[in-house]
Amino acid sequence: MIDLYSTATPNGHKVHIMLEECGLAYRSHHIDIGNGDQFTPEFLKISPNNKIPAIIDSDGPDGKEMSLFESGAILVYLASKVGKFLGDTDREKFTTLQWLMFQMGGVGPMLGQAHHFRIYAPEKIEYAVNRYTNEAKRLYGVIDRRLAESKYLAGDSYTIADIATFPWLRSWEKQGIVLTDYPHLKRWFDAINDRPAVKKGTTMFVDVRKPIADDKSKEILFGATQYAKR
Amino acid sequence: MIDLYSTATPNGHKVHIMLEECGLAYRSHHIDIGNGDQFTPEFLKISPNNKIPAIIDSDGPDGKEMSLFESGAILVYLASKVGKFLGDTDREKFTTLQWLMFQMGGVGPMLGQAHHFRIYAPEKIEYAVNRYTNEAKRLYGVIDRRLAESKYLAGDSYTIADIATFPWLRSWEKQGIVLTDYPHLKRWFDAINDRPAVKKGTTMFVDVRKPIADDKSKEILFGATQYAKR
Repeated sequence: MIDLYSTATPNGHKVHIMLEECGLAYRSHHIDIGNGDQFTPEFLKISPNNKIPAIIDSDGPDGKEMSLFESGAILVYLASKVGKFLGDTDREKFTTLQWLMFQMGGVGPMLGQAHHFRIYAPEKIEYAVNRYTNEAKRLYGVIDRRLAESKYLAGDSYTIADIATFPWLRSWEKQGIVLTDYPHLKRWFDAINDRPAVKKGTTMFVDVRKPIADDKSKEILFGATQYAKR
Repeated sequence: MIDLYSTATPNGHKVHIMLEECGLAYRSHHIDIGNGDQFTPEFLKISPNNKIPAIIDSDGPDGKEMSLFESGAILVYLASKVGKFLGDTDREKFTTLQWLMFQMGGVGPMLGQAHHFRIYAPEKIEYAVNRYTNEAKRLYGVIDRRLAESKYLAGDSYTIADIATFPWLRSWEKQGIVLTDYPHLKRWFDAINDRPAVKKGTTMFVDVRKPIADDKSKEILFGATQYAKR
């Protein structure tokens, strides 16, 4: 059994989608980041960088419990566990890893900064808005050119590189992007968006991630009692 | 034989250090990012995100040539190739991967933004300077707490997680950090800094990465002729 600690953000969705794609048994625990759940000592023990998502697998690689943080590491872990979505040959695996790292080091952090300066920052700073909007456009261009020559990011097959990248591109409007400007990317986006596991994964925790004051569900899904039992 | 395309930046140093640690035979080719070498069609073919470092291994996993971009993927590739610096058991490997991803998704991109807004941006924007200086301090704190309980980032052994993280922390002054505020991190930093491979790796391309106008060495180390031969 896998215990998932997460919420409805792009990095969260990666692992939600992956668990659905793999058909693994798991239990969901909501980490209410608006309420500071990510700073509790219990959560920091499995995720010392105080970020979601994190997992605890009761059946780790040596049969013992294993906890893991960082969405990219969790994707590789789950892909290795089920022997899917990573590629078959070593060449395919390293190609997948290369595009996964491109998501982890570029797509995620830079689109995250675009969200921050375009939408959430308390002041509108034109220089920073332009910096990250331009970088978003550049990154979409890189992906579009890749997908002009390749069905998926790592090649002919759907892999964790796609699963990692897709959730960040769902917020294209927030990033100042017009999706139809990137036709190859859009073809890929629509195909992934249609997958049942993706539909299910991207709705996880959406209903409970809401303003804190009236968030009673937190009690049920994450609350201190449940977590403290571990 | 491994062909390395890189320059003297933190992401470049990661791979320079790793090649030295592994004792692999390699040839260095300078990508002069101040001169736009990263946008040449030849370079984009192996690094479509127009970033250094990239490698071409004439002896790939299936015996055929393999090219790879993204420093994190290159580190895993080289570690797998030599069977070192990744951990022995699967548990150790995923723990290494987790801290490598923490570097790729957090330490690198966020300290990069700190460099930009603190030093390189044409205007001084207080909000952004504070945002990334605070994030730098938070990240150093996460690493310091980890290293209070663990000799290296992934555990008892020196791994690619350390090799990936160290080059970014060499620029602590640029990030508004006082290294002695993080005693466990400093103990780890000094130990890594003393390694001969690290000393050698961090000097690679340092002498040729200089203002473009008088950079004649580029001709020898990277120039179009040499690269076009491929």
